[in-house]
Amino acid sequence: MNLIYDKLINAKAFIFDVDGVMTTGQVLVTEEGMMLRSFNIKDGYAIQHAVKAGYPICIISGGKSSGITKRFEVLGVKDIYIGQSDKQAAYDEFKTKYNLADSDIIYMGDDMPDLPIMKQVGIACCPADAAVDILQVANYISPLNGGQGCVRDILEKTLKLQKLWMNDLSFTW
Amino acid sequence: MNLIYDKLINAKAFIFDVDGVMTTGQVLVTEEGMMLRSFNIKDGYAIQHAVKAGYPICIISGGKSSGITKRFEVLGVKDIYIGQSDKQAAYDEFKTKYNLADSDIIYMGDDMPDLPIMKQVGIACCPADAAVDILQVANYISPLNGGQGCVRDILEKTLKLQKLWMNDLSFTW
Amino acid sequence: MNLIYDKLINAKAFIFDVDGVMTTGQVLVTEEGMMLRSFNIKDGYAIQHAVKAGYPICIISGGKSSGITKRFEVLGVKDIYIGQSDKQAAYDEFKTKYNLADSDIIYMGDDMPDLPIMKQVGIACCPADAAVDILQVANYISPLNGGQGCVRDILEKTLKLQKLWMNDLSFTW
Amino acid sequence: MNLIYDKLINAKAFIFDVDGVMTTGQVLVTEEGMMLRSFNIKDGYAIQHAVKAGYPICIISGGKSSGITKRFEVLGVKDIYIGQSDKQAAYDEFKTKYNLADSDIIYMGDDMPDLPIMKQVGIACCPADAAVDILQVANYISPLNGGQGCVRDILEKTLKLQKLWMNDLSFTW
Repeated sequence: MNLIYDKLINAKAFIFDVDGVMTTGQVLVTEEGMMLRSFNIKDGYAIQHAVKAGYPICIISGGKSSGITKRFEVLGVKDIYIGQSDKQAAYDEFKTKYNLADSDIIYMGDDMPDLPIMKQVGIACCPADAAVDILQVANYISPLNGGQGCVRDILEKTLKLQKLWMNDLSFTW
Repeated sequence: MNLIYDKLINAKAFIFDVDGVMTTGQVLVTEEGMMLRSFNIKDGYAIQHAVKAGYPICIISGGKSSGITKRFEVLGVKDIYIGQSDKQAAYDEFKTKYNLADSDIIYMGDDMPDLPIMKQVGIACCPADAAVDILQVANYISPLNGGQGCVRDILEKTLKLQKLWMNDLSFTW
Repeated sequence: MNLIYDKLINAKAFIFDVDGVMTTGQVLVTEEGMMLRSFNIKDGYAIQHAVKAGYPICIISGGKSSGITKRFEVLGVKDIYIGQSDKQAAYDEFKTKYNLADSDIIYMGDDMPDLPIMKQVGIACCPADAAVDILQVANYISPLNGGQGCVRDILEKTLKLQKLWMNDLSFTW
Repeated sequence: MNLIYDKLINAKAFIFDVDGVMTTGQVLVTEEGMMLRSFNIKDGYAIQHAVKAGYPICIISGGKSSGITKRFEVLGVKDIYIGQSDKQAAYDEFKTKYNLADSDIIYMGDDMPDLPIMKQVGIACCPADAAVDILQVANYISPLNGGQGCVRDILEKTLKLQKLWMNDLSFTW
């Protein structure tokens, strides 16, 4: 019995934190104080492919940069919440909008602000280098670090289990 | 018998994907949503040296940034295709332009949009950290990751086998 | 007996160097000669959480970029000294302002300009990849490198020992 | 007998390549085609300290960016050659200007354009991740990679052997 695969095979939606999950956790600060982030292209491929496959995908970040919004709009993500000092309201809104139960949702986070939702959600995931308090509550710890493909890992695993990874849409972006 | 060396010694042209091959797969997103990439100088040396040696070299990327074009123009690359959501047309055009057979071409890619051409081309190569579906079809997996010298690796191996690596042109850029 | 934990449990304030401690030690130089730094978000979380918990936190850097100031202002840090070619004056001013003894202060540095204060301060800490002369005088060497979470490590350890890590303020930023 | 320490103890001057020595070999390309580099602060500390100690220090790069010049001017380096497609002329000019013999000079390079000078110079050094043709001719291979402290390594070793590392100038920048 592999409990996590049983959960992934029934997952209906994905929520991702940004810093430390979509990125290595580094932010490049400009002289004007803007914070620039580096995103992973293999993660990006998997996100746009999951969008095309029809999954609701949600981004909830404490960060405020418009670069976050622009990155995920390009990938077709519709539910992008930035500047969320408390993530609960965004989580509830997304759940209601798509009529989802906690058990339907895969959530990947890496640090303390993610902890309350990770205790509530059905399938709590984190990168290998998540904070220790997060590692302790995760249902699935990706072998990959934040920004190094942990998002791709959980998306590819789930879509392969649900037979939606390899199809006519797989070879175009 | 070393099948891959037998193939490299007869190779006539090179095609490279960009993200995850020429780069580590990270893109730095600006506040305006522009995507900036970091390229490897040792790869760059090998590309301009191969151009001087007369090899047709082609870049096919799904990315749209003018930074990609500018990077490879500086290295002397003439066939640069960006914004290719489907890579087949660019591949066919390059093959026809230089009168090449599939078996003459080394192609290095790292993710799903590269898969159809990697099944067609004579010498399919990928970085060590390519997607698992790519690793399975590659004729040669470089020991180096994307952006960490995998392009240099395949160019240096091929030009050394073809006795075109070390000559009067090797010490100037 | 664990001497370092005995020291951390009584610490009252934190001072951090920037380059090589808050960052990996890399600076991105623009065409205009500006120096841009990448900061770690998990470090950032811990800094703003320690500020909320009431600890005096001080930044002393030889670097001059306004990006440094802006990064730490956002996190609530009040005592930010940049452009300090000699760090002693800033150290003395901070100590006096908050009526601190040397033994109350955790200082984390990584290179030669930090050496005199590290010999004076009560709790001298450094990242795993500090200069060898710094490693030799440190009371605590973090297992993590500069920019890879060494700041988070010392803050989290100290606040956990002092029972100020996990509380109602932990889940908002 | 340790031949390399015998050489370092008599060295009088330093010449460094930039890409792959002072940097990891990555260049960040902007939309306008400018190439931005990341430099290592521990390398920077050692360079300005060696300048203060009176060593002639020279930079010879094939790269053309003004960011290179600005980075090293700040550190007090006076002999900065950029845009050198062939490095021999700059090498000869520096040698003549300071009345140096080949055997007086430490040269650190990492790729083919450095090869002719590395065969000529008294003390040929390279980072651990230099090109294979460079590794073969080096008198000293630093255990550190380009941009990861290989420049600091050779400067610190030499100045410690020559008793010029630790003094009143060591703690200010």
